[in-house]
Amino acid sequence: MNNVAIFSREEYEGRVRAAKQHMEQKGLDTLIVTDPANINYLTGYDGWSFYVPQAIIVSPMLTEPVWVGREQDAFGARLTCWMSENAFKPYADYYVQSEVRHPMDYVAQVIQSYRLDQGHLGVEMDAYYFSALSFQRLLQALPEARFHDATLLVNWIRLIKSDQEIRLIKQAANIVTRAMDTAMEVIRAGVRESDAAAEVLRAQIQGTEEVGGDYPAIVPLMPSQVRTGAAHLTWIDRRYEPGDTVNIEIAGCVQRYHCPLARSAVIGVPSPQLLELSQVVAEGVTTALDIVKPGALAEDVEIAWQDVIQRYGYHKPSRLGYSVGLNYPPDWGEHTVSLRRGDLTELRPNMVFHLIAGMWLEGYGLEISETFRVVPEGVEVLTGTDRKLFVLEEPRALCS
Amino acid sequence: MNNVAIFSREEYEGRVRAAKQHMEQKGLDTLIVTDPANINYLTGYDGWSFYVPQAIIVSPMLTEPVWVGREQDAFGARLTCWMSENAFKPYADYYVQSEVRHPMDYVAQVIQSYRLDQGHLGVEMDAYYFSALSFQRLLQALPEARFHDATLLVNWIRLIKSDQEIRLIKQAANIVTRAMDTAMEVIRAGVRESDAAAEVLRAQIQGTEEVGGDYPAIVPLMPSQVRTGAAHLTWIDRRYEPGDTVNIEIAGCVQRYHCPLARSAVIGVPSPQLLELSQVVAEGVTTALDIVKPGALAEDVEIAWQDVIQRYGYHKPSRLGYSVGLNYPPDWGEHTVSLRRGDLTELRPNMVFHLIAGMWLEGYGLEISETFRVVPEGVEVLTGTDRKLFVLEEPRALCS
Repeated sequence: MNNVAIFSREEYEGRVRAAKQHMEQKGLDTLIVTDPANINYLTGYDGWSFYVPQAIIVSPMLTEPVWVGREQDAFGARLTCWMSENAFKPYADYYVQSEVRHPMDYVAQVIQSYRLDQGHLGVEMDAYYFSALSFQRLLQALPEARFHDATLLVNWIRLIKSDQEIRLIKQAANIVTRAMDTAMEVIRAGVRESDAAAEVLRAQIQGTEEVGGDYPAIVPLMPSQVRTGAAHLTWIDRRYEPGDTVNIEIAGCVQRYHCPLARSAVIGVPSPQLLELSQVVAEGVTTALDIVKPGALAEDVEIAWQDVIQRYGYHKPSRLGYSVGLNYPPDWGEHTVSLRRGDLTELRPNMVFHLIAGMWLEGYGLEISETFRVVPEGVEVLTGTDRKLFVLEEPRALCS
Repeated sequence: MNNVAIFSREEYEGRVRAAKQHMEQKGLDTLIVTDPANINYLTGYDGWSFYVPQAIIVSPMLTEPVWVGREQDAFGARLTCWMSENAFKPYADYYVQSEVRHPMDYVAQVIQSYRLDQGHLGVEMDAYYFSALSFQRLLQALPEARFHDATLLVNWIRLIKSDQEIRLIKQAANIVTRAMDTAMEVIRAGVRESDAAAEVLRAQIQGTEEVGGDYPAIVPLMPSQVRTGAAHLTWIDRRYEPGDTVNIEIAGCVQRYHCPLARSAVIGVPSPQLLELSQVVAEGVTTALDIVKPGALAEDVEIAWQDVIQRYGYHKPSRLGYSVGLNYPPDWGEHTVSLRRGDLTELRPNMVFHLIAGMWLEGYGLEISETFRVVPEGVEVLTGTDRKLFVLEEPRALCS
């Protein structure tokens, strides 16, 4: 079997050990992991199979995590996971989208087969692919189990990256830099938005000479014109016009590790309003980054940002950023630490955040973001793209 | 407000009317829709915001569906939905990924504000983005409501497409044809898999001169070599080698409507084993398509296929296909009708299916698929790509 798990067996075993320690602290005998990023983190499994229920089972009673998934995906699991041959428990295809059977019935059977059904079981209650019905079926099939919410248990372990994870994120940083350069080259009046997005996506997947790109967890968010006033719109089938603003929020991705980056561009002459906003946002981002160091709190970063923009009369009700790393659609964020008031997490070396100063002002908007790593000396910003509103075509002098 | 909902107001109102009829049959007073495709189907809402909880509320007591989502997405909702200004109920950003608040608490408040909390409420228990915790929070916040599973209620309405939906799917068919042509042009020995995937994705988004491409719900599934034996692996960072087999499963997408297509290719001379398999699979697909007509059953299509491949000694344990159309990541399938034994759904005009003959034989594999529309006369196959194993580079004569 050609086992191609990305990290060393030791790194995976360390992660599983950490999960078991967290389980012990929470009094859990068994953990049912359904978040695809957490499954990948603990086992290496990488496939676009999360559109059907799947899970791994972690327990001190098991020497290795047990993978449960669809029959046609078991071979892919064996190819990408570090565990030994008998750790794979595929379910038959008649469980898929059936009116009578549910894959979680099978997960329950596997748990029973290991006699893990009488203890305290952790489930990721708020994970994307753990549906209300998935939980209900587990409850029905395992009447003697006591269930507990363990939604972010593994996510919190992911918060501090290993040096090998950092290496992948830096490779992704090189990719997103190129993809952003591409965006700034192809966005011009008269070009179809879809054609510009096509070139950006191409650059994301081509990657660099060093490494090819993996698919990011989010497609390019590239709204233009009035649509820049909304946070999560994609391109549409229209041609850019002179005067358009375009937001570009993208990521590079290597082995599922992300480095996001956002900038805005204007085709032609920016309005004084937008230009001023961009200068305030750039100053706010720089000021926020300056206070990053081990021991600072997550909320400190946002407070520094708010001080700047409030001085200029602006307001941003949404958080300034979040922990980022390994992930699958629909999100590259890790759902643990947010850069916002009230989040008292202490920053520590090898945490990685996407600080995104997105101003969505209903009718117009602007984004400047940076992905940064906390290092002993303070902050390491992972990309070098100019921190400004990009002005495309003549007159370019306005943006300098 | 620049309302850009794709279909006419009448089409949306007809869809909502159909949903209310189905609700009445099930005794539901209110429906909480969380599946992004179902939200889009009933309202037009289109944004990559499904990574946070969102919902629309449908009830005979409401003249229009009510959209509930994140504050920063409300403007995008107003831009893309057909409803009037007061149909949008955004929640504050502090509900997002919070340890104390949950967006479903806010959904519950909105339901209470319309006095809909004492009746029979339908929820999509097995929809991707309706987590176990989402349901638990609704249960806690709406103690007087009686909840019922309405998972596929809207999906079943989507099964039969309008002519305008068919038009979009046919545009997507033209896109996937070009993208598959691109795959066959760029896959060569020495090329990086990621570079080939980049060109395919570019073609998917460029679209045609007629229409730009939207992002498909699944990235190109393009495993090579031994990885073709697994169903859902993507490209990796290696170079193709002479003799490699590559599976290519992709879709064109227009306004979220998909036309999938899968083919396999071999670089150089295919093994006699693979060549024979491809001929059997092509014959099986053709035979299965031949029996499609209004009144035939979904299972008839698979039985016709099985008859052919069993005659040659092959076996495919997984279903042969599924209804397809409007969707978001992680799946373009509609989760209603499957082409498999036991599915007794009668085929009717303007149903659209992805018939995918995927043979994943642990170590090697092959895929040939067709997306077809049921028409009064029988079947309309939506793409014209040769139904064969593609042989790339010399000697090409082997594939003719």
